Amino acid sequence: MSDPCAQFVQYAEAHQAKWIANLAEAVEIPSVSGDASFRAEVYKMGAWLKNKLAEVGCDVSSHDLGMQTLDGQEVQLPPVIVGEYGHDPSKKTVLVYGHYDVQPALKSDGWDTEPFELVHDTRTDRLIGRGSTDDKGPIMGWINVLEAHKALGLDVPVNLKFCFEGMEESGSVGLDEFVVEHKDKLFQHIDAVCISDNYWLGTKKPCVTHGLRGVAYYKLTISGPAHDLHSGVFGGMMHEPMTDLVQIMSTLVSPQAKILIPGLYDQVAPLTDEERQVYEDMEFEVADVDQCTGSSTAVSDSKTDVLMGRMRYPSLSLHGIEGAFAEPGSKTVIPHKVTGKFSIRLVPDMDPAKVTDAVQKHIEAEFAKLKTKNTMHLEEDHPGKPWVADTKHWNYEAAIAATEAVYGVRPDLTREGGSIPITLTFADALNANVLLLPMGRSDDGAHSTNEKLDLSNYIKGTQLLGTYLYKVASAAAS
Amino acid sequence: MSDPCAQFVQYAEAHQAKWIANLAEAVEIPSVSGDASFRAEVYKMGAWLKNKLAEVGCDVSSHDLGMQTLDGQEVQLPPVIVGEYGHDPSKKTVLVYGHYDVQPALKSDGWDTEPFELVHDTRTDRLIGRGSTDDKGPIMGWINVLEAHKALGLDVPVNLKFCFEGMEESGSVGLDEFVVEHKDKLFQHIDAVCISDNYWLGTKKPCVTHGLRGVAYYKLTISGPAHDLHSGVFGGMMHEPMTDLVQIMSTLVSPQAKILIPGLYDQVAPLTDEERQVYEDMEFEVADVDQCTGSSTAVSDSKTDVLMGRMRYPSLSLHGIEGAFAEPGSKTVIPHKVTGKFSIRLVPDMDPAKVTDAVQKHIEAEFAKLKTKNTMHLEEDHPGKPWVADTKHWNYEAAIAATEAVYGVRPDLTREGGSIPITLTFADALNANVLLLPMGRSDDGAHSTNEKLDLSNYIKGTQLLGTYLYKVASAAAS
Repeated sequence: MSDPCAQFVQYAEAHQAKWIANLAEAVEIPSVSGDASFRAEVYKMGAWLKNKLAEVGCDVSSHDLGMQTLDGQEVQLPPVIVGEYGHDPSKKTVLVYGHYDVQPALKSDGWDTEPFELVHDTRTDRLIGRGSTDDKGPIMGWINVLEAHKALGLDVPVNLKFCFEGMEESGSVGLDEFVVEHKDKLFQHIDAVCISDNYWLGTKKPCVTHGLRGVAYYKLTISGPAHDLHSGVFGGMMHEPMTDLVQIMSTLVSPQAKILIPGLYDQVAPLTDEERQVYEDMEFEVADVDQCTGSSTAVSDSKTDVLMGRMRYPSLSLHGIEGAFAEPGSKTVIPHKVTGKFSIRLVPDMDPAKVTDAVQKHIEAEFAKLKTKNTMHLEEDHPGKPWVADTKHWNYEAAIAATEAVYGVRPDLTREGGSIPITLTFADALNANVLLLPMGRSDDGAHSTNEKLDLSNYIKGTQLLGTYLYKVASAAAS
Repeated sequence: MSDPCAQFVQYAEAHQAKWIANLAEAVEIPSVSGDASFRAEVYKMGAWLKNKLAEVGCDVSSHDLGMQTLDGQEVQLPPVIVGEYGHDPSKKTVLVYGHYDVQPALKSDGWDTEPFELVHDTRTDRLIGRGSTDDKGPIMGWINVLEAHKALGLDVPVNLKFCFEGMEESGSVGLDEFVVEHKDKLFQHIDAVCISDNYWLGTKKPCVTHGLRGVAYYKLTISGPAHDLHSGVFGGMMHEPMTDLVQIMSTLVSPQAKILIPGLYDQVAPLTDEERQVYEDMEFEVADVDQCTGSSTAVSDSKTDVLMGRMRYPSLSLHGIEGAFAEPGSKTVIPHKVTGKFSIRLVPDMDPAKVTDAVQKHIEAEFAKLKTKNTMHLEEDHPGKPWVADTKHWNYEAAIAATEAVYGVRPDLTREGGSIPITLTFADALNANVLLLPMGRSDDGAHSTNEKLDLSNYIKGTQLLGTYLYKVASAAAS
């Protein structure tokens, strides 16, 4: 066998046990970025990763991002770990992004196993543990690719730069600035970007993802009395902030998930027949949503409408109310100041500033209708633009060809409903084509209890990442 | 001076320092009923009270109410302390209710002084401390009355039965059953009931209270997906429970505090001209509400409308949502199951069962309009009927005459917006006229930081309670 890619693929089949052990080591470090008491574990995970990258032949550097305030403490941000593999000017250079931090997890949340011990359930052939699919599995996939090439004595067909952060689950604090600062230094001469931090559309067919929705987050505060009041003593005498807030929140979105704010849909790029056809052809059933949600609550019986609701139209979700009674039980207080939280997922050609204008205008108009003596304040937070990539690029050709080679099927070209703000930064700051090449499935439960990565997704996913590098080398050359 | 009532009143003037010291002893015991870690202090307070009642000449008994689960522990309920003073069949027997438990308090909540040390602020002549006004001040008032009579060698003009509970701030668990069980035993031959556990309408003029609103508490749950979902991934594809809940909650009450549930106002007793006149004559200004709320949020500029909104009309308050995101910050989850909490304060002739029927019917109709695939469940909790007493009774004549004697003013006859369920039990089970004779003012901050009782309210309030007993003896005889 002389084809190096075929040798690599065969190596992957033969070394599953070792690669499971690699992932188990990574999962055992509870690198929870959102909790100050776990910060030392995030550092430990960064150091572990640095060693792993060095072992497989990378030049590795660790980059300090400064301090943050977390849980009332001043703590050091986890470093960005950068690995550089190869400096051959005749090869393309691919920037790979991943994150080594994870969501919080406690067995008492409802896990069937210890969350920070990787369990290989041989009955289902699933690898269960926090971070298995988000995002330690994909990170280990890249390391496995280099380990295989080193073991086989094979040349890697492209230059690689790894950018692994430890704050993705907590807002990627500092990463944007880091990428922009290094666009002409560490990240000079990047030809393409590959991110493996999302999921297949369903559970059977792989996909390549070329779009993400943006997000605008709003906090609407209604203030009235100076302190909470007894509803027996004051109920019926005064304007209650909760009443006003609920009235306004009820004007934002319909039960059919249509946004009711005037003018928002005018900003959405018109749907072409060609685009509609893409959604109609996508391998997907409404039952797939129901399986993921564990319910029959899809807004439509049309697969196309449901897919477009997620991928190419905006959505508005009401997340909750701060300041009101949220515990179990029967407290009878009138809250004096309440803040409704909602967010809008943005799609091309929506502009966050124009969206905020429309939201502000709508809320002011609705508030005026209430004729209340309470006061209102709207705050915007976390604006992030939508991103859509050009799929005619050789980067996409390579990912599609690699998927066909490994899975024997042409992947769906999907857009994601969620938001990964760094994607847009890579695209804009590095002026490079970006693609999302997922390893896991839609039912992996990335942020939930019993997070898992199917063993087949881990092994074939690693084969996919390696094969993609070969396809980049050939597609870019052709 | 031979008039015994005048001797008592004068004794009160002369013994203020001792009575402040009595109250200070009571406040020093942090008898917080809602926190298992303070339960021993509640027992201690009960024992202290038993001794005090015995010292002033009562036969005292302590009544076990059994166990409860609190903060995950099985703990003994605080006992009901019953004191009996006099068994003269030629005298009327007055049952006095009070409670010796208090709300929680920590200096760090915002108290200017230690909450469980009674501070006499001589600048404002206020007695500041947890329980000063709610309800240790009034309890000490009764004990002071007996102490004065003992010291002066005076006959007490009525027989007294004291019923002091230690669970009022935590739902009066077990008290209803206790009162019903003892209606033909300890509480046989009760001629009238006097409760001093509420407040003046304002800060200047005393009142006698003859009505309380009832309360019905509702929990409206909307369930959809089996678990919380990512709003990026699922927003726009499915019916979100928060959207449905907020839609329904917005149909319950207007910003002007008018209940929107059809049929509810039909159950309210019609307003007579005479009754309206009572509210128009009441000493009150809209500015008094604003002072209490620390805002200008009264629903009307008419004092009469505001008073009737509190006292003689129902009200509906939205308390909050369980299951949604209620913390500070910007979480983007779609909650899978949310429970909206609201309560309705009830007035004559509203019947809790009929109210619940109307609420259920309305919510079912509104839910059907949503055309959602989520499911809805309404639960009722804590039903309590409204109570209104006959003010033409000698019990009220006595309270009014005593107020005129002590304060030199005819008290307003008020109704309270809040609910004290035991009031109705006393009225119904003992078939006795019940009145509420407050000691404190509207700005005492019963459940808040810096709870206080003005010294003048404590001393004059004690004079009022004693004088009321003389007026009972003469009014009942006439």
